[in-house]
Amino acid sequence: MASQLGRLSVGPCWRVARGGCGGLRAWSQCGGGGGLRAWSQHSGARRICRPPGPAGTEQSRGLGHGPTARGGPWLGTGLAAALAGLVGLAAAALGHVQRAEMLPKSSGTRAPSLGRSEEEDELARRCGSFMAPPVTDLGELRRRPGDMKTKMELLILETQAQVCQALAQVDGGASFSVDRWERKEGGGGISCVLQDGCVFEKAGVSISVVHGNLSEEAAKQMRSRGKVLKTKDGNKQWWFGGGCDLTPTYLNQEDAVHFHRTLKEACDQHGPELYPKFKKWCDDYFFIAHRGERRGIGGIFFDDLDSPSKEEVFRFVQSCAKAVVPSYIPLVKKHCDDSFTPQEKLWQQLRRGRYVEFNLLYDRGTKFGLFTPGSRIESILMSLPLTARWEYMHSPSENSKEAEILEVLRHPRDWVC
Amino acid sequence: MASQLGRLSVGPCWRVARGGCGGLRAWSQCGGGGGLRAWSQHSGARRICRPPGPAGTEQSRGLGHGPTARGGPWLGTGLAAALAGLVGLAAAALGHVQRAEMLPKSSGTRAPSLGRSEEEDELARRCGSFMAPPVTDLGELRRRPGDMKTKMELLILETQAQVCQALAQVDGGASFSVDRWERKEGGGGISCVLQDGCVFEKAGVSISVVHGNLSEEAAKQMRSRGKVLKTKDGNKQWWFGGGCDLTPTYLNQEDAVHFHRTLKEACDQHGPELYPKFKKWCDDYFFIAHRGERRGIGGIFFDDLDSPSKEEVFRFVQSCAKAVVPSYIPLVKKHCDDSFTPQEKLWQQLRRGRYVEFNLLYDRGTKFGLFTPGSRIESILMSLPLTARWEYMHSPSENSKEAEILEVLRHPRDWVC
Repeated sequence: MASQLGRLSVGPCWRVARGGCGGLRAWSQCGGGGGLRAWSQHSGARRICRPPGPAGTEQSRGLGHGPTARGGPWLGTGLAAALAGLVGLAAAALGHVQRAEMLPKSSGTRAPSLGRSEEEDELARRCGSFMAPPVTDLGELRRRPGDMKTKMELLILETQAQVCQALAQVDGGASFSVDRWERKEGGGGISCVLQDGCVFEKAGVSISVVHGNLSEEAAKQMRSRGKVLKTKDGNKQWWFGGGCDLTPTYLNQEDAVHFHRTLKEACDQHGPELYPKFKKWCDDYFFIAHRGERRGIGGIFFDDLDSPSKEEVFRFVQSCAKAVVPSYIPLVKKHCDDSFTPQEKLWQQLRRGRYVEFNLLYDRGTKFGLFTPGSRIESILMSLPLTARWEYMHSPSENSKEAEILEVLRHPRDWVC
Repeated sequence: MASQLGRLSVGPCWRVARGGCGGLRAWSQCGGGGGLRAWSQHSGARRICRPPGPAGTEQSRGLGHGPTARGGPWLGTGLAAALAGLVGLAAAALGHVQRAEMLPKSSGTRAPSLGRSEEEDELARRCGSFMAPPVTDLGELRRRPGDMKTKMELLILETQAQVCQALAQVDGGASFSVDRWERKEGGGGISCVLQDGCVFEKAGVSISVVHGNLSEEAAKQMRSRGKVLKTKDGNKQWWFGGGCDLTPTYLNQEDAVHFHRTLKEACDQHGPELYPKFKKWCDDYFFIAHRGERRGIGGIFFDDLDSPSKEEVFRFVQSCAKAVVPSYIPLVKKHCDDSFTPQEKLWQQLRRGRYVEFNLLYDRGTKFGLFTPGSRIESILMSLPLTARWEYMHSPSENSKEAEILEVLRHPRDWVC
């Protein structure tokens, strides 16, 4: 499963320096794109079946076998659960220095201070449940409690902690390594990775909160998305993006319905048109063009959301964030003890190869990150599976379980009405 | 090892329709770029150590262990040997139809015909040693025996056969599958792949001879390389490109020297300045920017070669083609029975992950091919390893053999003076 929940882009009006617009660039940017944003990226959360033993051995790596009527191994390949949030901060179209002045680096504010208000205590309490202290200084967050950037950062940190907790719990024993990192160009992130667990081979849940100037490559990508932010009228521009999708090795109709229904219910709270629209967007986005197939069985994907209002879109993203754990964890619990054959494991590996192809060739976030100076490569590429395989001219036999899911990847289905 | 030997680009003067130039596009193109070209791509030729047994099992896949002083497994990761040649054919800046008229599809000329000249018999004899009949109709090749397009197609077919033969011989038992394919937009290719051999896990040797209109994406890439082919003066433009490089898992100084020396000797026949220039080009080209390291220990790489003359550059490419087998096969023979540890195998898999990153993110040929409609995906992606691995935050310990090769990948060395 992969989730990109809560990508917020908020920024002042500005211009891209090149491309005929002139002016200074003062984008907030991240590994995955430009603009002031908070989003979540996918990563590998993959199942292994093996007897208790030292971590790091390879012999018993596996894939789950589904006990349902449609049966077959299921949770193997692309079950990736992750959340990477990026909240960028930019002040005005006056470049990096100006921004730094407007968002001064305060210090010592993470320790409890005397005379804090109740609101501040509440903030400290929330932060206590996170995987690591927020990227933005606590004092800064306190100074702007109602600000969308604050709300978004707290939401993604909270969601990261919830997802990590759920994954660690279902894994049974493994714990996440937590890396809190800073980006010298502005901002930072928290990368949580579980490797060699009892259930998960690799699971990553990352967030980042970044700001700074946009690289030319990133600016080009923004322009290609129609995001030319103007400085002229001084109005702020903002938008949200996110998503949540599933990449099973084999098709399990019941599970696909559960996954999509959970996401649909989250969407439906905010409008009946949202799920169908974002379901289609997801199918279109995760398309491996050169293969003529999708990466997985979809979910929801959205970007450039800027209506009806910041608050309303935020509430929608909140609902989606809440849906991540219930959409996915039940499937892990259901299948984590399934057995599997070597042939099924091989197919899983081949599908993971396709996952790699998509992520390196097409994924906007991955490409943005890799070509952005100062981004943290390990956090971006943690989305790649532990192992993958490519065979020349592999083609599943007719009426096989492999052919069954390929058919769905080639012709996406509607799972819920 | 990867080789790109003999990329020839020959074409009439024409314009790219978009980008402010106007005019018709009549490029000859291929999976790897635009222009009339014949080149060789790399592919995976990787060693496995295992007892005799059914193919397709995974247990005993391995990597060679070097017996030399610098020792260590060596032939594991990136030993890719391949040749992909592309000879494009275009006639004039009059589009596809015109080209088709000028290069009519003759048929039945592959069967011996009565009254053939000695020259024609010689051609039939040469073709008899190829892996499959030439892409271009034999009758067509006979009509233009001295033409560079003919000479180039025959050279790459001959080299393909020589490389395949050498690889199959060293493997001991495996044979290549041969796929001859046609491209409806013009041209075709011959893909030879050996999988699950005794020595090689996967080895690919492909050639293609393609023509047709250039896609906008391909045209853009050509422009970025300064290849704006003008129609005005009617002069033909042509250039050659190619290369040969090695991607070992561990460093073996002696082998690196042998590989580079063999290529240097081929270059030196045509000028002392060529090897240093093309060695540096290779180090610069196979750079995984986001990792700050090269894919392997280099070799030679060249492109856009158009001087001093077509004939002279052809002779240079011929010398390089002859160097492929002697640069590489002795290393395979030397190491194919080396043993290896699980840790060494793991490092091999991680390095193969980097190979995948380079090929999907940076390799010009791969990206061109994937984004070119009508290209044969399986022939392009046969360059990916059978298996690869990604671990979060993997870092070799100081003074280890892994750190030793990383140092070379980060700071390329001069292997021969």
